[in-house]
Amino acid sequence: MTETSLFDRLKKDGKEAWDAYTRHDFVYRMADGTLPEPAFQDYLVQDYLFLIQFSRAYALSIYKSRSLAEMRNGLEGLKAILDTEMDLHVRTCAKWGISPEALEQTPEKAETVAYTRFVLDAGNAGDLLDLYVALSPCMIGYAEIAAWLAPQISDDSPYRAWVNEYASDAYQALAGDTIARLDRLASEMATEARYPRLKKLFEAASLLEASFWQMGLDAAGPDPASGIVGA
Amino acid sequence: MTETSLFDRLKKDGKEAWDAYTRHDFVYRMADGTLPEPAFQDYLVQDYLFLIQFSRAYALSIYKSRSLAEMRNGLEGLKAILDTEMDLHVRTCAKWGISPEALEQTPEKAETVAYTRFVLDAGNAGDLLDLYVALSPCMIGYAEIAAWLAPQISDDSPYRAWVNEYASDAYQALAGDTIARLDRLASEMATEARYPRLKKLFEAASLLEASFWQMGLDAAGPDPASGIVGA
Amino acid sequence: MTETSLFDRLKKDGKEAWDAYTRHDFVYRMADGTLPEPAFQDYLVQDYLFLIQFSRAYALSIYKSRSLAEMRNGLEGLKAILDTEMDLHVRTCAKWGISPEALEQTPEKAETVAYTRFVLDAGNAGDLLDLYVALSPCMIGYAEIAAWLAPQISDDSPYRAWVNEYASDAYQALAGDTIARLDRLASEMATEARYPRLKKLFEAASLLEASFWQMGLDAAGPDPASGIVGA
Amino acid sequence: MTETSLFDRLKKDGKEAWDAYTRHDFVYRMADGTLPEPAFQDYLVQDYLFLIQFSRAYALSIYKSRSLAEMRNGLEGLKAILDTEMDLHVRTCAKWGISPEALEQTPEKAETVAYTRFVLDAGNAGDLLDLYVALSPCMIGYAEIAAWLAPQISDDSPYRAWVNEYASDAYQALAGDTIARLDRLASEMATEARYPRLKKLFEAASLLEASFWQMGLDAAGPDPASGIVGA
Repeated sequence: MTETSLFDRLKKDGKEAWDAYTRHDFVYRMADGTLPEPAFQDYLVQDYLFLIQFSRAYALSIYKSRSLAEMRNGLEGLKAILDTEMDLHVRTCAKWGISPEALEQTPEKAETVAYTRFVLDAGNAGDLLDLYVALSPCMIGYAEIAAWLAPQISDDSPYRAWVNEYASDAYQALAGDTIARLDRLASEMATEARYPRLKKLFEAASLLEASFWQMGLDAAGPDPASGIVGA
Repeated sequence: MTETSLFDRLKKDGKEAWDAYTRHDFVYRMADGTLPEPAFQDYLVQDYLFLIQFSRAYALSIYKSRSLAEMRNGLEGLKAILDTEMDLHVRTCAKWGISPEALEQTPEKAETVAYTRFVLDAGNAGDLLDLYVALSPCMIGYAEIAAWLAPQISDDSPYRAWVNEYASDAYQALAGDTIARLDRLASEMATEARYPRLKKLFEAASLLEASFWQMGLDAAGPDPASGIVGA
Repeated sequence: MTETSLFDRLKKDGKEAWDAYTRHDFVYRMADGTLPEPAFQDYLVQDYLFLIQFSRAYALSIYKSRSLAEMRNGLEGLKAILDTEMDLHVRTCAKWGISPEALEQTPEKAETVAYTRFVLDAGNAGDLLDLYVALSPCMIGYAEIAAWLAPQISDDSPYRAWVNEYASDAYQALAGDTIARLDRLASEMATEARYPRLKKLFEAASLLEASFWQMGLDAAGPDPASGIVGA
Repeated sequence: MTETSLFDRLKKDGKEAWDAYTRHDFVYRMADGTLPEPAFQDYLVQDYLFLIQFSRAYALSIYKSRSLAEMRNGLEGLKAILDTEMDLHVRTCAKWGISPEALEQTPEKAETVAYTRFVLDAGNAGDLLDLYVALSPCMIGYAEIAAWLAPQISDDSPYRAWVNEYASDAYQALAGDTIARLDRLASEMATEARYPRLKKLFEAASLLEASFWQMGLDAAGPDPASGIVGA
């Protein structure tokens, strides 16, 4: 398509949607410590339910792979989530007073359903590139948000641990791999004529991520300090 | 499973979710004429985008059919939407001042994405019965809502035409066929042990329909009359 | 990709596989009248079972469509098969002494399973272009075979009616539309880097079509005239 | 459904297809040592290609899972194949003089395509039970074949290592788990009315496995000793 990284191009051309997500009020409030804890707790529970669907998306990427190398690449991602991240998430939730039972029994909210099923359907309807483009805001956005928050968040912020996890070298490297995979797939599968649809997919996914943050804010109820929560 | 119709049982056991959808504030306000027109217009546009995804769900049902008879049954539904309903919808929108261009260019809202992709994913992940259970609130709920509204809505209500369409003998018969199809599939594929999952699917789909109505209300902005719009 | 039609390029680069299919012994024997009738009868029955799966592939193409126009295009194809071709096929079979019951009760042979499920899986794993490339040997090959046979087959050949059907202006136009659709999709979705996989898909599908013909020949048993049946 | 294990019932009711597979000439000839080595070598290469598709089927089972427990169960199976079995297979092939390059470059034969894509399509079209029933002849059949061969095959048979692998406690336990999983899914999802379709699926899969053996025999060419090649 072009010499630029597909992801960089998507981020630049879809800047409005990307910023709506990565610079969401939820993120700013993590930074300055004004995020209500119930908002974060609600987010944590929904993010657990999100991870389950995210694993299904990875499994779908293996089904849709065209080579053993691609399958093994997808399997690494799937193992990372099912064998490691889910347990880490359960422990994080425990620290926030959320029991494993609560995680199991809370139903998905509409915003969780919207983003996860959008990704799965984009993957089923399209090819591997569509699937990974739809997943990219999640995988890469968290790395970017955490890298942005890390230097500014105070050490005793309740959100410090979350930031550290996604700002870690390990996660940043994972995001880098994800960008590289997108570029590899794009070099094979993305014509210039296809780009507008990929951009639309990327923007829709970014906005659905933004509404996922908003869901957390909304859960904390009206905020007398701002008066425009959830607007 | 049991001798009761599967749908009747789902509706009874999932009464809370079903009522949240079929007795939503949006519906009451259609009845008494207090629904703001922008709310209905927003709904109409999103419902058009919904129908496109709904057609994809019908196409999926044909792919998932196990006999020619089932395939032809699905094809009738698909033709009804793509060959007839879509055009009818475009004409209805025109009467409400919504141009075909507006229909094409408006993006799907998160609530539209949530219900439609939920249905498609339920269909891809499960079998034909899962797919039709996830679709049932839409197909049967509209018939029920319209039948309930028809005797109470005034003849000069702007929502009279909408009610008439879904209260028509033709649509009511279609809903009856849908119930019969559910029962036919259930008699083959639904054990008692499977019922809790089907119920969960039905409730989730009903609640996603409720949030689809809410999306319309929210689009009309804060309502000074009630002060609790979108709550 | 290039200025040549994708199909022409695939046919040229995959000439060996394409000829193995379109110039299969089964086809030559239809031309010169030496094809044993049981071979053709076996083919007819399996082709009926093939059409059912082919309809599922068309339904899948509608699910995978990215616009209403594409969906309607797929629907025309699906209606052509389910509403028209299947009945025509049943009547053709009746003339060859094959009852509707025989059509319903005969199981698919491995060769029928191989090509049809290969197409469906290519479609599920890949995108709309993969699906249509995998379908193209069937849709376009029959037009080409019949156009080649038409001037040489005798008027009283038992295979004349079959040739006439696929050599008809209507079917030839359908094949032309199919080529145009491939080119349209390729212009959006096929990079040069993707071409080798598309070629591999095309060749595999063509060879599976060749083995579908061979299945018919094999069904007629050893042929004393040639001594190299199934070679 | 009934108190019998689903698998036992399928095996009993589909005895003809099951025996065509588990008591195929290929198997008898492994036992008595008359299987031509080229037949086994051809089988080994195709079985490698089979395993790749088999991994995709496991990935699909994770996508189609309804709980974390089911997903993790599927992941264990997927890891066993992609992380362990594939490498073991490569080593086995090396001992038989088949290079990794040969494994990569050999195309799938029609019989390999037929069984693997049949399974994947059954899984996509149906639910998790359909997928596992379609996979069961492979997973359980090998255990049964090896357990039958183990006491009768000579220690210096070239096929002894193959038999040992599948007769091992580890593999026999895996087959037992597979039967237990089928029963667990059946208890939730299989009504008596559904049984005939499951039986048909099982029989078709068993016969496609039989044709997979036959493909190996056919690859070795006419056998002067028997005079009934491919019979």
